[in-house]
Amino acid sequence: MTVHLDGMASARLADPDTKESTIDVSVNKNNEKHGKDNRYRKVKDEIKQVGSESKFHVTPVSEEEHELNNTVPARPTPELKFDIDDEADTLSNHNSITALLSSKFRDIQKRLKQYGIESPRFRKRLVSRWESMNYDVCENVLYLKDQEKYKSKKWVTLRWLSKWLVMFFIGIGTALLAATIYYVVEKLAHYKFELISHYFDECAKNNCLYQPALLWMGINLVVTIAGASLVTFLQPLAAGSGIPYIKSYLNGIKIPGLLTFRAFVAKTVGVVLSILGGLACGKEGPMAHSGSIIAAGFGRGRINLCNGKTFSFYSVFRNDHEIRDFVAGGAASGVSSAFGAPIGGTLFSLEEAASFWNQDLTWRVFFSSMIACFATNFLISAINGDPTKLTDPGLVRFNAFKFDLKFDLIEIPVFIFMAVIGGLTGALFVVMNYKLTVFRKRYLDKKWIKIVEAGLVAVVSAAVAFGLMVGVNECTDKAPFDSHAVTASVYCSDKSHNSLSTLFLTTPEGCLKALLHDPFEMHGPVSLVAFILVFFLLGVWTYGLSVSSGVFIPCLAIGAAWGRLVGIGVANMMPENPNLQLDVGKFALIGAACQLGGILRTTISLTVIIVECTDDISFGLPIMIVLMISKWVGDFITTGLYDMNVEVMGLPTLPFECPPLCDDLRASDVMNAPLATFKTKEKVANIYRMLKEETFCGFPVIEDDPRSPGKGKLKGLILRNQLLVLLKKKIFCPEGQVPPRNITIKDFRDFYPVYLKVSEIELSEEEMTYVMDLKPYYNPSPYTVEQKFSLPRVFNLFRGLGLRHLIVTDENNVPVGIVTRKDLAKFRVGSKRGLVKIEQLKIQDK
Amino acid sequence: MTVHLDGMASARLADPDTKESTIDVSVNKNNEKHGKDNRYRKVKDEIKQVGSESKFHVTPVSEEEHELNNTVPARPTPELKFDIDDEADTLSNHNSITALLSSKFRDIQKRLKQYGIESPRFRKRLVSRWESMNYDVCENVLYLKDQEKYKSKKWVTLRWLSKWLVMFFIGIGTALLAATIYYVVEKLAHYKFELISHYFDECAKNNCLYQPALLWMGINLVVTIAGASLVTFLQPLAAGSGIPYIKSYLNGIKIPGLLTFRAFVAKTVGVVLSILGGLACGKEGPMAHSGSIIAAGFGRGRINLCNGKTFSFYSVFRNDHEIRDFVAGGAASGVSSAFGAPIGGTLFSLEEAASFWNQDLTWRVFFSSMIACFATNFLISAINGDPTKLTDPGLVRFNAFKFDLKFDLIEIPVFIFMAVIGGLTGALFVVMNYKLTVFRKRYLDKKWIKIVEAGLVAVVSAAVAFGLMVGVNECTDKAPFDSHAVTASVYCSDKSHNSLSTLFLTTPEGCLKALLHDPFEMHGPVSLVAFILVFFLLGVWTYGLSVSSGVFIPCLAIGAAWGRLVGIGVANMMPENPNLQLDVGKFALIGAACQLGGILRTTISLTVIIVECTDDISFGLPIMIVLMISKWVGDFITTGLYDMNVEVMGLPTLPFECPPLCDDLRASDVMNAPLATFKTKEKVANIYRMLKEETFCGFPVIEDDPRSPGKGKLKGLILRNQLLVLLKKKIFCPEGQVPPRNITIKDFRDFYPVYLKVSEIELSEEEMTYVMDLKPYYNPSPYTVEQKFSLPRVFNLFRGLGLRHLIVTDENNVPVGIVTRKDLAKFRVGSKRGLVKIEQLKIQDK
Repeated sequence: MTVHLDGMASARLADPDTKESTIDVSVNKNNEKHGKDNRYRKVKDEIKQVGSESKFHVTPVSEEEHELNNTVPARPTPELKFDIDDEADTLSNHNSITALLSSKFRDIQKRLKQYGIESPRFRKRLVSRWESMNYDVCENVLYLKDQEKYKSKKWVTLRWLSKWLVMFFIGIGTALLAATIYYVVEKLAHYKFELISHYFDECAKNNCLYQPALLWMGINLVVTIAGASLVTFLQPLAAGSGIPYIKSYLNGIKIPGLLTFRAFVAKTVGVVLSILGGLACGKEGPMAHSGSIIAAGFGRGRINLCNGKTFSFYSVFRNDHEIRDFVAGGAASGVSSAFGAPIGGTLFSLEEAASFWNQDLTWRVFFSSMIACFATNFLISAINGDPTKLTDPGLVRFNAFKFDLKFDLIEIPVFIFMAVIGGLTGALFVVMNYKLTVFRKRYLDKKWIKIVEAGLVAVVSAAVAFGLMVGVNECTDKAPFDSHAVTASVYCSDKSHNSLSTLFLTTPEGCLKALLHDPFEMHGPVSLVAFILVFFLLGVWTYGLSVSSGVFIPCLAIGAAWGRLVGIGVANMMPENPNLQLDVGKFALIGAACQLGGILRTTISLTVIIVECTDDISFGLPIMIVLMISKWVGDFITTGLYDMNVEVMGLPTLPFECPPLCDDLRASDVMNAPLATFKTKEKVANIYRMLKEETFCGFPVIEDDPRSPGKGKLKGLILRNQLLVLLKKKIFCPEGQVPPRNITIKDFRDFYPVYLKVSEIELSEEEMTYVMDLKPYYNPSPYTVEQKFSLPRVFNLFRGLGLRHLIVTDENNVPVGIVTRKDLAKFRVGSKRGLVKIEQLKIQDK
Repeated sequence: MTVHLDGMASARLADPDTKESTIDVSVNKNNEKHGKDNRYRKVKDEIKQVGSESKFHVTPVSEEEHELNNTVPARPTPELKFDIDDEADTLSNHNSITALLSSKFRDIQKRLKQYGIESPRFRKRLVSRWESMNYDVCENVLYLKDQEKYKSKKWVTLRWLSKWLVMFFIGIGTALLAATIYYVVEKLAHYKFELISHYFDECAKNNCLYQPALLWMGINLVVTIAGASLVTFLQPLAAGSGIPYIKSYLNGIKIPGLLTFRAFVAKTVGVVLSILGGLACGKEGPMAHSGSIIAAGFGRGRINLCNGKTFSFYSVFRNDHEIRDFVAGGAASGVSSAFGAPIGGTLFSLEEAASFWNQDLTWRVFFSSMIACFATNFLISAINGDPTKLTDPGLVRFNAFKFDLKFDLIEIPVFIFMAVIGGLTGALFVVMNYKLTVFRKRYLDKKWIKIVEAGLVAVVSAAVAFGLMVGVNECTDKAPFDSHAVTASVYCSDKSHNSLSTLFLTTPEGCLKALLHDPFEMHGPVSLVAFILVFFLLGVWTYGLSVSSGVFIPCLAIGAAWGRLVGIGVANMMPENPNLQLDVGKFALIGAACQLGGILRTTISLTVIIVECTDDISFGLPIMIVLMISKWVGDFITTGLYDMNVEVMGLPTLPFECPPLCDDLRASDVMNAPLATFKTKEKVANIYRMLKEETFCGFPVIEDDPRSPGKGKLKGLILRNQLLVLLKKKIFCPEGQVPPRNITIKDFRDFYPVYLKVSEIELSEEEMTYVMDLKPYYNPSPYTVEQKFSLPRVFNLFRGLGLRHLIVTDENNVPVGIVTRKDLAKFRVGSKRGLVKIEQLKIQDK
C-alpha cells in the first residue's frame, strides 16, 4: 500500500508485491517547495471557509468557563491520501490484531450495508475544539523569578505540606459527598418503593393494579424530568458517568466546563434524581467525576458560582500542571469511595497518565484515596448505626457471601465459557448503544427532546417492571438476603412474595446485591430470563441519556442475573451435589465480572477494583481470568463502551504507543504549516492582527534575521493566552522605551483557567504602533524535532512529556511547522483485506 | 548559595540575603571559549591519568558476558564546585523534605565524628562502569529495512502472538522454579530440624546437649559454605535478594552478568542452601531475580552455558528494548509466585519503569504474573496433596487466621504507635547494615573471607538459637498452629515443649507463620524479647553476606514478634476482654507490616503485595496506614535498605523527577564536552583510533563542513557497539568504491548482548586507509536539546524517553556535548543549615 503525500514525499508503507523494497524517504526539494506553496494556498482557502469564530459556538460548553478563544481549532492540515476503506467504517479498533482478525466481521457489515443499513462516520473524525492542556512548564523569566522565593526551607516545606493537605481535604470532601448521596438515595428510594409496594399489595386484592402502575410511572417521570433538565440546562457535560471525560482529561485534553461548580451540582443532584427516577443506572461512575471537580476546586482555591461571582482563597496552584495532579487524586478518591477500592482508584488515575507517573505523586494520590475510603467507611458505618465498626468502605461491595469464595480447577472451563458469553453480549451492548448514540446525535439534538426521551425511558422502565411482575408472577417464600429489602406479594399468597419484586422494587444496586446473595430458590429461571432481557435493553437505552448516570451497576446486574442462571443450570445438572446450590452466588459474581469486562473492556485498574470489591484475593484469580478473556472476545468485535464514547465525541486521546506502520511518516508530513511566528520584539498591531486572524494557540518566536525575514532561528514559544494577558495589561511601549509597568506570574494566574477573548481587548490607534518585548514571557526552551524525525519518535516525545506544541525545525534550527495533539491522534490502525493499514481521521468542527 | 561554574556561567541558586535577586543566565562568549579551552586541556589530562582500560577490570563481572569495552566509563566532566557539606555525608536522602528535616540528625552525626567515629563516603559517588541500556530504538536504514517485512498481516500477528507466548512461558517457568524450590526446601528443612529435635530430646535426658549443638552448627556451616562458595565464585551478582539490581535494571541501567545462566544457578541453588544453612533469610526476594533471568533467557532465545557454549533458538527479540519488556514480566512473575500477588507483582515491575509504561505491555506483564500465580498455586497444591484445591497461590501467605480480620476505630492509635516504632527500628536496621556494608567493602573484599564470614554467621545463628532454647526454656502445652511443625521438649515435661523451638527449629517462614497464627499462650514475653533481639541482629548481619538470600521474611518475622508482644501487652491491660487474646495474630501482622515498611520503605507495590498476601482487603486499610507512617518515620532518618544498597553500589538510578533547585543549571553545565565526532564518511584508521583512545559509548555523526572542520551540523548518532561490529565485519572499502559486502540487522543481533572489544579487531595497514560510509548505520534522528535548556527539562526528556545519550547542540545545530545518565544521576538533594542545597556525587571507577 502506498501512501500519497500531497506532492511531498513518497513513503512506502507495505508493499507485499515488491520483493526488493527500497526505502524512499528523501524529500525532493523542488517538490517540497512547490508542494508547500500549493499547500499554503489550499490551507488559506480552507481557513477562509472556516471564517468567523461563531462556527465553533455549537458546543455544549458552559458560559461560565468559556475558553473559546483558547480552544480554537487547529488549522486543517493537508491530508495524506491513505486508501481509506469506505466499507469498513463502523467498528474500527485501536488494537492492531483485533482489527486484523475482525475483518470477517467487516464482511457482515458490508452485507448489512447492501440491505440499506448504513453506518455513519462518527468514529472517523476528531473534533477540532478539543485542545491539549499546558502540562509542560513554561520556564520563562517570570517563572524563574517566581521560583526564586521557593528556594528557602520555609517555602519548600510549606509547598510540600500544602500539597498533602489539599489531597487530604480532597479525600475528606469526596467521602462526605459519597456518604450524603448514599444517605439520601437509600432513604428516599426505600420510601418510594415502600409506597409502591403498599399499593401493589392493596390493589392486587381490590383489583385496582392501575393505581401502583400509574403511581410508579408518575414518580419516575417527574423525578427523571427534573434530573434531565438539571443536566441539560446547567451543564450537559455532567451527563452519563463522566468517566470517558475524566479519562480524556487525565490523558491531557482540556475540556472546558468539565470541572466547574455547575457541573458538580448537575452531576451530584442529577445522579440522585436519576436513581430515584427508576433508571437503570448506578451512582458509582459519577463519583469519579464528582471527586475530580472537588479536587479541581480545592486546587484552584476558588469557587465560581453563578453570575460571575467567585470566592478566591489562594492562587499558587493555578496552572494545568498542578491542577491535573490534584484531579488525579480526586478521581482516585471518587473511585475509592464508590467501590471501597483505594488501590484500584489509584491505578485508575495513573493508568491514563503515562507521562505524569512519578512516585511522589503516586503516594499523594494513594493517600487521598485512602483517606476517602476510610472516611467513607466511617460515615456510612455511622449512618448504618455504629461509626466504629468500619465495615462499609465504599458505596457498593460484593463481599457479603455466606460461604467462603473458593474455586476448583474443574470450574475454570465453565468460567471461561461464561467469559466468552460476556464478551459477546458486551460487544452487542456496545454496538447497540453506538447505533443509538449516533441516532441521538443526528435526530435528538434539541434540549427539550433530550428531556422528553429521559422521561420516556423512566416511564417505560416502570411500565415494563410492572408488567413483568404482574405477568411472570413467580412466587417464593424465601426471605431476601437484605432484611430491609422491599417485597410485594401481588398475586402471591400472604406468606410468599413475588420474586421479581425484590429485583425491581429497589435501586439497581439493591438488585445486584439480591442477585449475588439471595438464596438459591428465590429467583426462578423464568424471572431471570425476563429480567435479563429487560434490563439489558433498558441499560442500552439509558446509557447516553442526558442524565447523570453510571453504567457500572447495570452491567454488573445483567451479568449477575445470567451468571445466576448458569449457576442454576449447573446445580440442576448435578443434583447430587447440594453445595452447588450454595455456589449460585459465585456464578453470579463471575457472570457480573464477565459482563463488565465485555462491555467496558476492563483495564488493569478495573480488575483491581472488582477484586477489591469482592474482598477476597484468592478468588481474584478467576475474576482476573474472566475479565481478560471477556476483554479479548469483546475487542475482537468492537471497542469498549468508554472508548466508543470517546470516539463518538471526537476526543483526540493519545494511545500509549504510536500505531504501527507509521515508521515512514516524517514530522514534516504531519506538522501544521505554514507557521505564524513572532519576532522577539514585535509590533502590537502585528500581534493583535495575528491573534484575530489566526487560530493557533502557540506561536514560535524567532530571531529577527534581516537577511531572510520570517525565517530566523527559533528563540522560543509563546502561547495565545500569554499574549492576550500581555495585551490586556498593556505591557508595551513606544519603540526604544522601557515598558512602564511590570507584570508577575500572578497576573497570569488570576485569569486561570478562564482566559480572555481577543474581542475583549481594546487598543487605541497609538497603542497599535507600540512594541512589545516578548523576551521575558516566551518559553525559551521549547522541545523541538527536526523535519526528518519519524512519526513514532515524534509520538514518543509528545506523549512521554505531555506536550501541547512540538515545534518542527529544519536543520538550521528555523521553525517550519508545529505538531499538536490532533496531528498525532488522527492516525489510527485499521485493516483492509488482510493487510494492516493506517486510517487517518478527519479533523472537523463538529 | 552561589554555584561556581568552571569559568562559564554564574547561576544563582538561592541567596536569601540578596533581596532583589537578578537572574544571570547569559553566557559570556569570551569566557565560554576560554573555559572550554581550559576544560579541554584539563579533561585530556584526566583521561591520560585514567589511562588503559585495565583500570576498569576490577568489577565482579562474569567473563561469559563481558561487555567491558561496552561499559567503559564516561569521561570525567569538569566539576561544578558546589558547597559540598563535608560533615553531613552519611545519610543523605533523595527526598527533599526528609532531608531538610533530618538536619538535627546530622548534628548527632557531627558529634559522633568528633569522637572519631567517622563515616566513609560510599554514598557520595557513582561508579563509572554502570551504563544505560539502549532502550531508544535506533531507526537507521537497516532497521527500517528490517521493519518492512513485519508490514504484513502474517508477521504482525506472529510477532504479537509470540510476545504473548513468551510471556506465558515466563510465567510457567517461574512457577516451576518456585514449586521446585518450595518442595526441596520444605522436605530438606523438615528432615534437618527433625534430626536436631530428635537429638535435643534425647540429649536433654542424657545430658549430652553438646551433640545437637554441634550437629546443628555443623550442618549450618557446611551447607552455608557451599552456598557462599557457589555465589562468590560463580556469579557475585547473585548475592542478596537481587531486588536492588532488578530495580536498577528496570530503571534503565545495564548490569552485565545479572541475567545469565550462571547467575540463575547461583541464585536458585544458592537460596536453597542459604535457608538450609540456617541463615536468617527468605526465599521470596530472590524469586524476582530468578524470574527476570528466566525472562531474559526466553526473550533472547539463547542459553549461554559455561565454556562459551551456547544454544540459540531465535534472535528476533535481541535488543535492550524487547528484553527489558520481558524482564518486566519475569520480575512480576517472580514476585507473583513468591507472594501469590499478581497485582503487586505487576506494580513492582511497572513502578520503576515510568518511561516504559504502556497499556499493552501492562496487560502482558499482568498476564505473565497471573499465569505464574496460577501455576504456582496448582503445583504447590499438588505437592500438598490435591492439585485442584488451589489454595496456595504463592510461597508465603499470611491468610490462615482463625478469625475474621476486622479492625475497630479505637485500635488505629495503637497501630500508629506501632508504625512509629517500626519506622525507628527500621531506620536502625538500615544504619547498622550500612555500617556493616561499608566495613565489608573496606576490609572483607577477598573471596575466601566472604565465604568464611558466611560460615561464621551460620554457626553463630545455630549457637545463639541453641543457647536461647536452653537458656530461656519457656515451656508450653499448646499445640503449634502448623500441625507439621517440629518441636523439641528439651527440659520441658513430655506433654509440653520448649516454646522457642517452634520459632528456631524451622525455616524463617515457618517462624513467621508461627508468630502470626500460634495460640496466644504459646509464646511468652521473655521468649519473644530474646527472639526479637537475636533475630534483629542476625538479620542485620546476614543481609549483605555473599549468599543468595531475601530480606523480606526476616523483616516480617522481627515485626511479627514485637507486634505479638504489643498484642500480649494490650490483652493484659484489658483482661476483661477475652477477644483480645484471639487478636494477638492481628497485632503480629500489623507489627510485621510496620517493620517491613520501616526497613524497606515500601512503595505502593509492596503495599499491594502485603495486602494480597493477607488476602483480606478490608484489613488492607490499616496495613496501608501503618506502611505509610512507618515509611515517613524511617525516611525522616535515613533511606530504605534497597536504596541504601543502590547508593553503596554507586548505581546511577534516575529518580522520577529532577531534584529541586536545579532550574538554573543548563544543559551546557552538565554535558560531557569536548566531543568525539565522526563524519558521515570516515576513514577506518580514524574510527579505529577513536574507539581505542576514547571511552565514549556513542558518537555524534556530523556533516563534513570544509569551512569549519569538526564543527559540522549534526547528522546522527552512532554507537560504539555498532562501529565494532562494522569493523569486525569489514564493511568498508577504498574511497569512491561501493562496499563489497552487505550487512543486516541480524548481524548486529548475533552479538547481543556480548559485544566485541577493540582488541578483538584486526585490521591490515591497507584496510586502515579505507573509508566507511556510516550513513546506513547511524541513528539519523537522535533526540537533542539546545545548550540553554534547563536541567529539569533535560531530565524530563532523558527520563521520559529512557535515553542513553542526549546530544546537546548550539543554536546552529552543531553538537557541542553529550548528556548521559550519570550526568543527571549525580545531582542529589541535600540540606545545609536549613537551606536546601544540591549535592553533586563524584563519578569514580570503583
